Amino acid sequence: MAQANIGVVGLAVMGSNLARNLASREGNTVAVYNRTWARTETLIDEHPEAGFIPAKTIQEFADSLAKPRTAIIMVQAGKGTDAVIDELVAVFEPGDIIVDGGNALFTDTIRREAAVRETGINFVGAGISGGEEGALNGPSIMPGGSAEAWQTLGPILKSIAAVAEGEPCVTHVGTDGAGHFVKMIHNGIEYADMQLIAEAYDLIRRGTGKSPAEIADIFAEWNKGELESYLIEITAEVLKQVDAETGKPLVDVILDQAGSKGTGVWTVQTSLDLGIPVSGIAEAVFARSLSSKPAQRAAASSLPGPSEDAFKPADPEAFIEGVRLALYASKVIAYSQGFDAIVAGAEQYGWDIKKGDIAKIWRGGCIIRARFLNRITEAYAENPGLVALVTAPFFVDVMAKAQTAWRNVVADAAHAGIPAPAFSSSLAYYDGLRADRLPAALVQGQRDFFGAHTYKRVDKEGTFHTLWSGDRSEIESEGSSH
Amino acid sequence: MAQANIGVVGLAVMGSNLARNLASREGNTVAVYNRTWARTETLIDEHPEAGFIPAKTIQEFADSLAKPRTAIIMVQAGKGTDAVIDELVAVFEPGDIIVDGGNALFTDTIRREAAVRETGINFVGAGISGGEEGALNGPSIMPGGSAEAWQTLGPILKSIAAVAEGEPCVTHVGTDGAGHFVKMIHNGIEYADMQLIAEAYDLIRRGTGKSPAEIADIFAEWNKGELESYLIEITAEVLKQVDAETGKPLVDVILDQAGSKGTGVWTVQTSLDLGIPVSGIAEAVFARSLSSKPAQRAAASSLPGPSEDAFKPADPEAFIEGVRLALYASKVIAYSQGFDAIVAGAEQYGWDIKKGDIAKIWRGGCIIRARFLNRITEAYAENPGLVALVTAPFFVDVMAKAQTAWRNVVADAAHAGIPAPAFSSSLAYYDGLRADRLPAALVQGQRDFFGAHTYKRVDKEGTFHTLWSGDRSEIESEGSSH
Repeated sequence: MAQANIGVVGLAVMGSNLARNLASREGNTVAVYNRTWARTETLIDEHPEAGFIPAKTIQEFADSLAKPRTAIIMVQAGKGTDAVIDELVAVFEPGDIIVDGGNALFTDTIRREAAVRETGINFVGAGISGGEEGALNGPSIMPGGSAEAWQTLGPILKSIAAVAEGEPCVTHVGTDGAGHFVKMIHNGIEYADMQLIAEAYDLIRRGTGKSPAEIADIFAEWNKGELESYLIEITAEVLKQVDAETGKPLVDVILDQAGSKGTGVWTVQTSLDLGIPVSGIAEAVFARSLSSKPAQRAAASSLPGPSEDAFKPADPEAFIEGVRLALYASKVIAYSQGFDAIVAGAEQYGWDIKKGDIAKIWRGGCIIRARFLNRITEAYAENPGLVALVTAPFFVDVMAKAQTAWRNVVADAAHAGIPAPAFSSSLAYYDGLRADRLPAALVQGQRDFFGAHTYKRVDKEGTFHTLWSGDRSEIESEGSSH
Repeated sequence: MAQANIGVVGLAVMGSNLARNLASREGNTVAVYNRTWARTETLIDEHPEAGFIPAKTIQEFADSLAKPRTAIIMVQAGKGTDAVIDELVAVFEPGDIIVDGGNALFTDTIRREAAVRETGINFVGAGISGGEEGALNGPSIMPGGSAEAWQTLGPILKSIAAVAEGEPCVTHVGTDGAGHFVKMIHNGIEYADMQLIAEAYDLIRRGTGKSPAEIADIFAEWNKGELESYLIEITAEVLKQVDAETGKPLVDVILDQAGSKGTGVWTVQTSLDLGIPVSGIAEAVFARSLSSKPAQRAAASSLPGPSEDAFKPADPEAFIEGVRLALYASKVIAYSQGFDAIVAGAEQYGWDIKKGDIAKIWRGGCIIRARFLNRITEAYAENPGLVALVTAPFFVDVMAKAQTAWRNVVADAAHAGIPAPAFSSSLAYYDGLRADRLPAALVQGQRDFFGAHTYKRVDKEGTFHTLWSGDRSEIESEGSSH
């Protein structure tokens, strides 16, 4: 019976594709199980070449797996995941491995790992990026869980992962929820990157009057240079697409209300808990939610703005190059903020995350794959204790080349009335980070005034409070009063 | 024994001051209880005029209260609150009222209200704003809980609340957690308001070279006009304060690392759950966390920026007036976003919140009290179904007057390298809200490309997907695939 070295539970598109990917690699025999048999039957009928071992019950599924049994759960994140874990725990044995390949919230993964570990079974939360196509042909995989589980699981995941410059896009990220945490940050960065691209497109279109097809060519050109990435590539594809029905550019036919699946929100909420400013990601999430409020937008459509023809760049080509530089600089900030969140998460949860390795496994398979990730790996290789990605020499050079253009683009957008929340927020973050003095000192003064929250001084140790309602002398305080 | 009509549990500064406030109002007799007797003793010794009825045990405290017993808990939010509630529930009876006057997270209040209601006792979460001075002389109070509890509690709270234009700054906000929810949003708006003021100060200082004392005069002048508010008033006070030790402006001696107590983070996290873009508040929270990372700031201090003398406004007075208008416009956006969150929260949790009444009770006692709140009350009185505050006629006029200056200030800040995250984010939000078309359509195209997330069309009903890896024809889909 026990002939499969790996099993997949949950055979919707992502699960089916991952199972087919596994089956296509030398050395793998794949057991498959789905709650409803019909779906299993369809899969084995349509893909006889895969040599799947189908199971009608969870017990049959367990029996078909060689020990240590290894199963990847590919079901919708949430309660369904808990139900499948319970089923597997009932039929698995100590030393077996349960992998959750869904988009679980990392704190759920931490909870599940602790609970499953009690039974002696290994539980691995693994972020899998690359969508349906990645699942089939090679995703980027971010597994957490124990080092012991990684011994067995590693070779299997390496066999199916995308390959970038000869290296499989998978690494043991860290224990328990580390994999899902890093996958969450990946998705957050993806939100920022998409919003930045959207702003670049909008600025070029409204600034120069170029058509979507012409802008597609610009993006295709950008994709040959330092911005080379999957998202830039597919942006060109989307922009050149013509709607068959109307003959218009598809982007003009698509309703301009962006949806989301929650990982962007999680990234911002988690970063807020960790005290990490992820303004680029937050502005991207906000831009999507703003777009999806048609009643507000209708009521606001006549709010006063600059006249439509107020903004015409004198030199359109220079303007477009400026937008490219602004995009690049803002993208560096989004990654710098994202890696700050990874560092803070690793510290908070006790994970030993190699930042350079994370950039490496994002080079292939996943949505944010990009040439520029090699520069991030190099930056952390040069200086593993780098306190902010943007301060690495390579990125300092990027900023030196880009910053003037970036400032011009943000200023142009403000004058023109074109919303560029991620561009402008990234620039403001950059200028805040490099400021010698911040008006945070005034905020501390206000807080001390109305709430006796106390402040520290630049010139000596201690915590102080001014007696604002008294004689306004300063007293030393034992600490923040509340 | 039972002679007090109201009791206070927890006699740290906020609790002591609230108890003294209660005792000073005609008709109130106040029982007081603290976990450690020493604090109770100090309070009654120092304030014999209050006629407090001190209790050594929680039973004695309960016995000293006339029925229905009404007690306000003033302890640090968190587990301490749960412990005190348990103690009170043990000695109170059905019909009695327990009020939590701390800064509880509204979801905790919802949970506590449901649990206490089981015993027949009323539980009211009440947000109290105004700091120590407000507690003593008249705070703004935002109680939730049942209408029944409000019958008893209302007159007592009205007796101690701040009074604005003849009206006490307290109203029954809504059931269970509504009061703490609205207090949370109040604090979020406070974060945004403080950050905007800090940016205004920084821009004027770095733009014109004026001293803190000179800028104090500008704020004092602003406080005579449409920006009149407590925060503007105390900003002038803080800026004119001179450090006795060094003779320097105090604001230059205060370490520029802003702290926070968590309600700003809660506001943003909650708004993300509700799908409400609160970019002004988020940028304020991020600005504080950025400021508190000295290692990053040190590493980033030599990042390339414009030369120091690149920015000199030709007409400093015009520049200052522009900053004032930018501050006003950005502030309107912060409130508009905050009220969006209130509307969404009310819908999500089933609260009947009168937006105009909320603006009314913020006119006095609380940190964000401001002349301009009357305009908000009027806007909701004119149109209770207003879909976005900024679209009310009065605020449209504000935008019409301010928007050009606002754009100039954001552009100047970008060119000058002065961080203005809240100014620029508010402007980008404003331009996003009024945009005819947003590049969210491109984001939807990207999402459909890599994840088959589908899109809607502008010209017909339905949900669609382009076969990007196939012949690129469009198919109608049954809905988002995952």
